[in-house]
Amino acid sequence: MTPMAYATREDITARVRATFDACPSQRLKEVMTTLVDHLHGFARETGLTRQEWLLGVDFLFRAGQISDAARNEFMVLSDALGLTALVELMEDADEERTPTNNLGPFYVEEVPTLPFNADLRGDRPGTPMLLRGRVLGADGEPIPGASINLWQTQHDGRYDVQVPGLDEYRYRGWLRTDPQGVYQVRTIKPVGYTAPMDGPVGQMLRATARSPWRPAHVHFLIRAAGHRPLITEVYPQDTPHLEDDVAFGPRAALVVAPVEVRDRDEGARVGLSVPFVKLEFDFKLSPAEPGSER
Amino acid sequence: MTPMAYATREDITARVRATFDACPSQRLKEVMTTLVDHLHGFARETGLTRQEWLLGVDFLFRAGQISDAARNEFMVLSDALGLTALVELMEDADEERTPTNNLGPFYVEEVPTLPFNADLRGDRPGTPMLLRGRVLGADGEPIPGASINLWQTQHDGRYDVQVPGLDEYRYRGWLRTDPQGVYQVRTIKPVGYTAPMDGPVGQMLRATARSPWRPAHVHFLIRAAGHRPLITEVYPQDTPHLEDDVAFGPRAALVVAPVEVRDRDEGARVGLSVPFVKLEFDFKLSPAEPGSER
Repeated sequence: MTPMAYATREDITARVRATFDACPSQRLKEVMTTLVDHLHGFARETGLTRQEWLLGVDFLFRAGQISDAARNEFMVLSDALGLTALVELMEDADEERTPTNNLGPFYVEEVPTLPFNADLRGDRPGTPMLLRGRVLGADGEPIPGASINLWQTQHDGRYDVQVPGLDEYRYRGWLRTDPQGVYQVRTIKPVGYTAPMDGPVGQMLRATARSPWRPAHVHFLIRAAGHRPLITEVYPQDTPHLEDDVAFGPRAALVVAPVEVRDRDEGARVGLSVPFVKLEFDFKLSPAEPGSER
Repeated sequence: MTPMAYATREDITARVRATFDACPSQRLKEVMTTLVDHLHGFARETGLTRQEWLLGVDFLFRAGQISDAARNEFMVLSDALGLTALVELMEDADEERTPTNNLGPFYVEEVPTLPFNADLRGDRPGTPMLLRGRVLGADGEPIPGASINLWQTQHDGRYDVQVPGLDEYRYRGWLRTDPQGVYQVRTIKPVGYTAPMDGPVGQMLRATARSPWRPAHVHFLIRAAGHRPLITEVYPQDTPHLEDDVAFGPRAALVVAPVEVRDRDEGARVGLSVPFVKLEFDFKLSPAEPGSER
């Protein structure tokens, strides 16, 4: 029998890398071998013990067990470790357009299409807010007929999909820009909230004495023919936790000062009783890359 | 309003690290900040796109959904990325004792205690095997009364807990060493198997053209008063995939040549019909570290 070569502390990383030698996709090979390098680098640099490793494996197991169709704890973890923010910042190679921002775990694709100036608030609690602005192309021209999926929290900081027993969508829907490229919707001021604290990520945040808060924001996913889709968030400037967001979301270009409107005529024109808050934000898209669908 | 500092591509990693500044445990802080460094390093070096990141988050989500009390896909993932093997190799600072090895996902603590030379095989299929050896202390003296939790596959490469509807434990149990420090059990030769191929780790192994096989092995968890517990695996030398184990388990000191026994007298002494296979392995423990429980 020929002598066999078994893994040693010194060569295990190279051995694992080599198992990807036959990977048919060069990109997948690059991603997996770099992942192995950093995973092993993490364990080596920390001198990770078996007990700590077991805690980590159990952390991921419990993250899986608490996740379901309405909650992805791994998305929360990626946000809390700043991986989401880093990926979004790297996506922003085109600095002309509006910065991209965290998608978050609460997006729903199949929601109703709303009319211009739709009223999302009804008679429910919350500070009335007019949300409006334009969708613009790279050269600043307005884009009519752009599709905007908008979602935000209700008055208590929860998304509709987080409210047990609620069987309708609230504070979300598809908008379309008018012939002048304008979108407009009546809603409430979004409210900040914490990362979910009943799962392993919440446990990590407590154990490390980190702030669990996100600043208030409205999510947007925007699609327009001939342009790259844009996923982003807009933050009212007066929301707390802009600088210590647990998900590292805010960018200077996404923070906008809300304006208090007391003019009754302006209120009448948009169908809101004064006083209300007005948040205006123009989105700038970039042209679609040939062959790209991202 | 004072100008605020938001995350940039350049400073996001330092910002995330800084959120752990107030962590009350220095060790947890070290582990988390090193994790952030390597997670971000992985994303930066690969230029990870949002689409790839989403695939990764979804991979972990699906790993969570397919996991349950009898299956921890994150353990399988750790094995397949060689993290488990690296941690075990780092645990082996004491090179005098038997090397530690992967615990794996199939350990059960609460199993029956078996008599000396128990028959685990009954009349079920499989190559009859006598498994015996000694448990020794650091200076080579036999340890009587050591507890050994042993578990292995049945003839088809599955563990008992993987067989749907099976309501008893098979090929596992607690053994105790006799006054000479000897353990002995009649079982079958363990059979190799693949990592589970119906989940995301299986999908990764297929996509990267990796071998999914583990070599045949018997698991042992050994406890003896005054000694560090030992978790390890023993591999018959004639099992395939010792060199390309998907979990990177085999070590030279854990691979042992099985002996074919044709001597009827020897068979009669242990209650086995010839021919059968004999696998002998002596375990060497190290003294318990004061105050340590690992």
